[in-house]
Amino acid sequence: MTVGDVTTEGQQTVPGCSPRPTVESFSRVRELTDLLASRLSAEDQIPQSMTAASPAAWHRAHTTWFFEEFVLGRLPGYSSPEPVFRFLFNSYYEAVGPRQPRPQRGLITRPSVAEIGDFRARVDEAVVAALEAGRVDERGLELLELGCHHEQQHQELMLMDAKHLFSHNPTDPVYVHRSADPVAAAPGETDWLVVVEGVAQVGAPDPADGSGLSPDGSSSGGFSYDNERPRHRVWIPGGEVSTRQVTVADWKEFMADGGYTRPELWLSDGWAAVQAEGWDAPGYWRREDGAAGNASAGTAGAPASDGEWTTFTLSGRRPVVDAEPVCHVSFYEADAYARWSGARLPTEFEWEVASAGWEIRDELDPDRCHPQPVTDRTIGGVWEWTASAYLPYPGFVTEEGAAGEYNGKFMSDQHVLRGGSALTPAGHTRPTYRNFFPASSRWAATGLRLAR
Amino acid sequence: MTVGDVTTEGQQTVPGCSPRPTVESFSRVRELTDLLASRLSAEDQIPQSMTAASPAAWHRAHTTWFFEEFVLGRLPGYSSPEPVFRFLFNSYYEAVGPRQPRPQRGLITRPSVAEIGDFRARVDEAVVAALEAGRVDERGLELLELGCHHEQQHQELMLMDAKHLFSHNPTDPVYVHRSADPVAAAPGETDWLVVVEGVAQVGAPDPADGSGLSPDGSSSGGFSYDNERPRHRVWIPGGEVSTRQVTVADWKEFMADGGYTRPELWLSDGWAAVQAEGWDAPGYWRREDGAAGNASAGTAGAPASDGEWTTFTLSGRRPVVDAEPVCHVSFYEADAYARWSGARLPTEFEWEVASAGWEIRDELDPDRCHPQPVTDRTIGGVWEWTASAYLPYPGFVTEEGAAGEYNGKFMSDQHVLRGGSALTPAGHTRPTYRNFFPASSRWAATGLRLAR
Amino acid sequence: MTVGDVTTEGQQTVPGCSPRPTVESFSRVRELTDLLASRLSAEDQIPQSMTAASPAAWHRAHTTWFFEEFVLGRLPGYSSPEPVFRFLFNSYYEAVGPRQPRPQRGLITRPSVAEIGDFRARVDEAVVAALEAGRVDERGLELLELGCHHEQQHQELMLMDAKHLFSHNPTDPVYVHRSADPVAAAPGETDWLVVVEGVAQVGAPDPADGSGLSPDGSSSGGFSYDNERPRHRVWIPGGEVSTRQVTVADWKEFMADGGYTRPELWLSDGWAAVQAEGWDAPGYWRREDGAAGNASAGTAGAPASDGEWTTFTLSGRRPVVDAEPVCHVSFYEADAYARWSGARLPTEFEWEVASAGWEIRDELDPDRCHPQPVTDRTIGGVWEWTASAYLPYPGFVTEEGAAGEYNGKFMSDQHVLRGGSALTPAGHTRPTYRNFFPASSRWAATGLRLAR
Amino acid sequence: MTVGDVTTEGQQTVPGCSPRPTVESFSRVRELTDLLASRLSAEDQIPQSMTAASPAAWHRAHTTWFFEEFVLGRLPGYSSPEPVFRFLFNSYYEAVGPRQPRPQRGLITRPSVAEIGDFRARVDEAVVAALEAGRVDERGLELLELGCHHEQQHQELMLMDAKHLFSHNPTDPVYVHRSADPVAAAPGETDWLVVVEGVAQVGAPDPADGSGLSPDGSSSGGFSYDNERPRHRVWIPGGEVSTRQVTVADWKEFMADGGYTRPELWLSDGWAAVQAEGWDAPGYWRREDGAAGNASAGTAGAPASDGEWTTFTLSGRRPVVDAEPVCHVSFYEADAYARWSGARLPTEFEWEVASAGWEIRDELDPDRCHPQPVTDRTIGGVWEWTASAYLPYPGFVTEEGAAGEYNGKFMSDQHVLRGGSALTPAGHTRPTYRNFFPASSRWAATGLRLAR
Repeated sequence: MTVGDVTTEGQQTVPGCSPRPTVESFSRVRELTDLLASRLSAEDQIPQSMTAASPAAWHRAHTTWFFEEFVLGRLPGYSSPEPVFRFLFNSYYEAVGPRQPRPQRGLITRPSVAEIGDFRARVDEAVVAALEAGRVDERGLELLELGCHHEQQHQELMLMDAKHLFSHNPTDPVYVHRSADPVAAAPGETDWLVVVEGVAQVGAPDPADGSGLSPDGSSSGGFSYDNERPRHRVWIPGGEVSTRQVTVADWKEFMADGGYTRPELWLSDGWAAVQAEGWDAPGYWRREDGAAGNASAGTAGAPASDGEWTTFTLSGRRPVVDAEPVCHVSFYEADAYARWSGARLPTEFEWEVASAGWEIRDELDPDRCHPQPVTDRTIGGVWEWTASAYLPYPGFVTEEGAAGEYNGKFMSDQHVLRGGSALTPAGHTRPTYRNFFPASSRWAATGLRLAR
Repeated sequence: MTVGDVTTEGQQTVPGCSPRPTVESFSRVRELTDLLASRLSAEDQIPQSMTAASPAAWHRAHTTWFFEEFVLGRLPGYSSPEPVFRFLFNSYYEAVGPRQPRPQRGLITRPSVAEIGDFRARVDEAVVAALEAGRVDERGLELLELGCHHEQQHQELMLMDAKHLFSHNPTDPVYVHRSADPVAAAPGETDWLVVVEGVAQVGAPDPADGSGLSPDGSSSGGFSYDNERPRHRVWIPGGEVSTRQVTVADWKEFMADGGYTRPELWLSDGWAAVQAEGWDAPGYWRREDGAAGNASAGTAGAPASDGEWTTFTLSGRRPVVDAEPVCHVSFYEADAYARWSGARLPTEFEWEVASAGWEIRDELDPDRCHPQPVTDRTIGGVWEWTASAYLPYPGFVTEEGAAGEYNGKFMSDQHVLRGGSALTPAGHTRPTYRNFFPASSRWAATGLRLAR
Repeated sequence: MTVGDVTTEGQQTVPGCSPRPTVESFSRVRELTDLLASRLSAEDQIPQSMTAASPAAWHRAHTTWFFEEFVLGRLPGYSSPEPVFRFLFNSYYEAVGPRQPRPQRGLITRPSVAEIGDFRARVDEAVVAALEAGRVDERGLELLELGCHHEQQHQELMLMDAKHLFSHNPTDPVYVHRSADPVAAAPGETDWLVVVEGVAQVGAPDPADGSGLSPDGSSSGGFSYDNERPRHRVWIPGGEVSTRQVTVADWKEFMADGGYTRPELWLSDGWAAVQAEGWDAPGYWRREDGAAGNASAGTAGAPASDGEWTTFTLSGRRPVVDAEPVCHVSFYEADAYARWSGARLPTEFEWEVASAGWEIRDELDPDRCHPQPVTDRTIGGVWEWTASAYLPYPGFVTEEGAAGEYNGKFMSDQHVLRGGSALTPAGHTRPTYRNFFPASSRWAATGLRLAR
Repeated sequence: MTVGDVTTEGQQTVPGCSPRPTVESFSRVRELTDLLASRLSAEDQIPQSMTAASPAAWHRAHTTWFFEEFVLGRLPGYSSPEPVFRFLFNSYYEAVGPRQPRPQRGLITRPSVAEIGDFRARVDEAVVAALEAGRVDERGLELLELGCHHEQQHQELMLMDAKHLFSHNPTDPVYVHRSADPVAAAPGETDWLVVVEGVAQVGAPDPADGSGLSPDGSSSGGFSYDNERPRHRVWIPGGEVSTRQVTVADWKEFMADGGYTRPELWLSDGWAAVQAEGWDAPGYWRREDGAAGNASAGTAGAPASDGEWTTFTLSGRRPVVDAEPVCHVSFYEADAYARWSGARLPTEFEWEVASAGWEIRDELDPDRCHPQPVTDRTIGGVWEWTASAYLPYPGFVTEEGAAGEYNGKFMSDQHVLRGGSALTPAGHTRPTYRNFFPASSRWAATGLRLAR
């Protein structure tokens, strides 16, 4: 591959939801949410295990509110029969009005989980009826499309949040029962893909290019968020990007070499986080001490030997697996690992250029919900931290109205992750997608690959 | 009444649970918990709305754990089929072992609410079987008695916590539907009971005095916590105690006179709390602004006029009622009110002496759950802050073993409240009962009466 | 000693300042402050090492402001040439007006230390002139007397704060050079003084009793703070009070027996403090590790062996001395020690009764500033935690005006200490004096004695 | 100007310190520190007004430690006579060893201010002697050069910190007396410089290029920090950059238009900061209320009318001046202002390209210490927030040893500022200099210019 003919061929679309959702594609998105939630009891759907997380019941209601607010709300004469939901289930849209304080989402026990189900059904019916009657105007269709992608993002969040919640329960609750995988060998040394110095086009094309081709010849047609646009030129310095993600086996070497105890490997804020948080391994890892006391009395899954590292998964606690990508590491840890290995993290644009032709793998399988072993020249399984700060692209324009708050107002003090994870619904993992989290965050399924 | 013949005649007992519980009295206590919980959905039983509160599901399980740990655990050969519950539902007993961190009680969604019901049933059966088989030894019976009183305390906590939780929901959830009360006139000026200077006997007699009479002739026979004992002599300085509690109408005068804005009325820590917390009225009060926005969109109960004060109750939000005792005030507020009125709070011993002959009223009515209008020469309805710090009585002895942690280790930096509230189960409101909370706490049903 | 003839004979007075200060006694108090401050450089006088502490420069200015505000301010036509000092050097008197926020006292570098000296001289001159001219009215004389005692309290605070400040400097600054003491043997087993059950008179007599005799025949004449009054009756339960304070040697046994690692010995809040603060020894203690690194490179004083405990003193760091009273322990530690030893802390009234005839020793010697070895039947050297909460005495009346804020508004959530310390100016250590600190405080020279 | 011939002609050097310091240039830098410190009393040099700030005494000692550690420490046989200074005055160099905790720098009162002067003199003598004897090796000379620039950075910090400290004193201390400026008219509409789309070279050339010319023909010869290098290519999207900074007059319009009250103008974290911090104007601004009470009793400078905005300067408090650049605004405020004005902030590379030919103005004048009115096509006076996150340049290499900690470990979660301020020593304001602060920081002299 040479720089200059970077394309977005690999960019997939949510089947049917883009460019314009249909009754069928809309319903399919909504049904997946219900399927994912069906494995959570009413009790499981209530707690908010930290401010950054949200209750599953709230995710189900908030995504529904999004359609009511932005799609149904545009229909002439529409008014919500439950106006308090505008307050309860608005996430952060200042233009919509005041809302339930974010740290108090876990205190909403009424409407009940069943009533939230009724709310979903009512809004679904109204959206379908409006679609079938052709009453949704062009902007409404755009917002309906956005709403479908929004709901898919919340599907991933709902799983992340369930995992975070369950991890605080010493009974190691199981979200989905799954038998052990066949043992896979950890991949060996990585290959490095040469990224040639020069100007590259990055970002997603304008969705308004109905032809499916952007002016510069790249493929279009797929959905993109505003933060992926406009497509624009960047200068890529020459470099190499690893063709595979960092594995659990790799990470164990870093740990064995004192990775968590050597300040010279860390950014200053990262070293402060190591000390403040007591990090000595990735998130959800625990070293078993043989004489497991009360705290692990209920541990599910395979038994772990003394001194062995286990990790908490959506199928319970089990030993870590060498061949899997390392997961639940913060940006600080990813950066320290890269420094330790004599390499660095790729920028988001190197990543985009390098990965453009790679296969997308390991998107959300509701019966697995855990990354598969690393394979070469693929993306997916874990989100990958990049060296890039989350900033607007040149020419970025905030949309009018409340929808303009979707992405733009978060463009400071966060870091870009690229790819997708084993919790990312099919169609979202694409070369231009920009995920973002604060540098200390470990609750998403976050890993890394190296560059040099 | 003259000092010297202070008795504990007014002291009531939990019907049947003391001195030794029977199958019937044990079952009655357990059934009331189930009745109170039955008005809470599975969702309602999960959240922990602040660290000091606990989920209803946890209350139901913890009280059950208490019987398993302290009563069943004494039976030869007994071992719990669910050992992780020892970790999950231990509150603060260091001698029992490590436990779920207190701020994370709201993250326990498994066992489910139904499974906690099964746990309750299993333990109830085992206790009843052991009682019927005469297999509970004397110490076991003492702990069973303690467990019944413990469960009653958690009945009140469960209601306090439900109210606190619901108050964060703008839909103003209703715990129990209740029609409006007939309007009662606020009582007028108070009478003052003279408490004569001299030595008085206070505290509860030793329960081991099987005769029902303590050596000094006072009545015994009723249950008491260790913190109410030993009965001992104190010197009572002469004074007067108001024969009625401070009312909502009284409190409005304090507010109208700038009570919350005049530092000279407040203890230093109290004034700091006013400023830090933004207190300008008792807990749960809100001044309606007519143009109620989203935050009150779901407000239940009677409509409130512009500028009117409402309060959140277990039957929803409704205007404050002049004749009711003021409720949900902190010690700091009670103290400031007393200073403003030219009086002071009674000490716990003045209170005990003064109230000894008064009627106990307004104990928990599950269909009301709210204080009734103030009446003269009665206690109950609201807990009453006293001027006394919560300290051990002379000769206080900590019990052996984990049960010794029940009360003793909290005897610092808290203030004594006396009486009982409209959420206090029948039998607990008695002249010697010592409730205690930190000075800034407002979540219990706390009011006051004056002394001078 | 039998209860009933408790007197306040032991009560000493500040030589000359009470009942009414003279030019000479006023000047002597002021000069001691200057002497104590003279050992602190301009730099030393600026920092505020924690919110509860104050800079020496501020102490010097605040005590001066007290005389300007309360004594000179009463003189007809007086107005301060430096009105901003009213803002800068008011501590907590709401009635006087707004003031420098307490945590920002260490940011006042102007007026300079020399200018604060000028301020002191100016006020001294004006007070002396007014005294000599007989222009200070009766209330003014009372406030002048209060101001002298107030300044003496700040002399102790200034030393406490200097020690706290210096302890953060790895060069171990020396406040006063002092050669090592001759080695004293630690006292052996304690004697116990029997305190007989019955009614006792406690507290200080009304200073208005010009006769020097209070109505009940006790001695008067000495100064007392409002919080020591009124003299009143209490019921003393029978008990025994140790005739000597707990020593360093005693405390080492507690530590060797796991005192800081056994939760059953601690109040709940105390155990939380142990864990949050990492306490494993009294304040200022440090276990030397032989291979002392940078942190102790500048350590002054005698060299310490590996594993030996040292303590930081106003003469630098030196090994702990078995015969000295243990010092800089919190109420929580004192309480845990007492429980460990099978005893308890005395109440403030038991203490007052027991100590009434004991010798006062070890008051402030500016050339020593450190407690001397424990001796029998004495008070002083270290403040002694009691079991009593700091509450108003029956009949306590808050003075009119700003002076009423002196003590009264702090009467919640603190614990009473009795006696006096090696930093307490002569005349302040008396049987009725009530010092008070929060339960977790360790920065005063605080120790304990046992009761049972 | 067209892209492609961007040079670093405007880049100035510290006279004489680069490429290699001489006795004379070294001494000149050291003397300026002494001059700046000479206006601060011993008292002024002690406090640390917030964790991010440092005491002036510490700045003076730390810069000296830098020379001792990095230059003298390389000399054969050198050992410090004051090894504890390695602990006290190390800022953040993990490779050097443990150090005084950062928030406790204000507790170091010994060594005294005079002793720190002795330390400075001792190190100066040793450095000069070593230079004159030719005993400083090549790496030592590089570190000596770095040390000079390091000291200059601390000169600016010392002034920032003095201003921050003094602003907490209601007497409004004056660092340098200065009479009022002649009134200048605020500049009118701005011009916009077109920055043409294309590839540009940015960053500083390798200082090892002794020729003074980098391989691509740009000027070299000047000092640069590692974070300005390597010089590299970037793609500049077409745009326009304002030829002047935003003024006080501009900012008043933003405020008058509700700038601080409209969430739609703000980044999410910025809006949270507005609410948490209560921001309603730039840092150090205050709206005068006419009836100024104690808090402003000592205000120096020109009297302010009722309702007028004043600002605190190093010459005391004075009315804000329309023609001056707005100063002490956070990145969040700069970003919100840009959004309000329909523009945006320039990226650091747009800024570097646009400003390359502009005049450098308004560097540190010790008799002024305040920005002069804005002029066209100049940089300096205030640092300018850019849209760029602070990240390493492609090919950035961390230096070996402790010096590698100088800049690199801070490259996360901060924002780049370009230019220089009225507190920046001569020679530091250059087109490639990268200053950096967290987005919420307002204590440096920070302003902005617009791009679009």
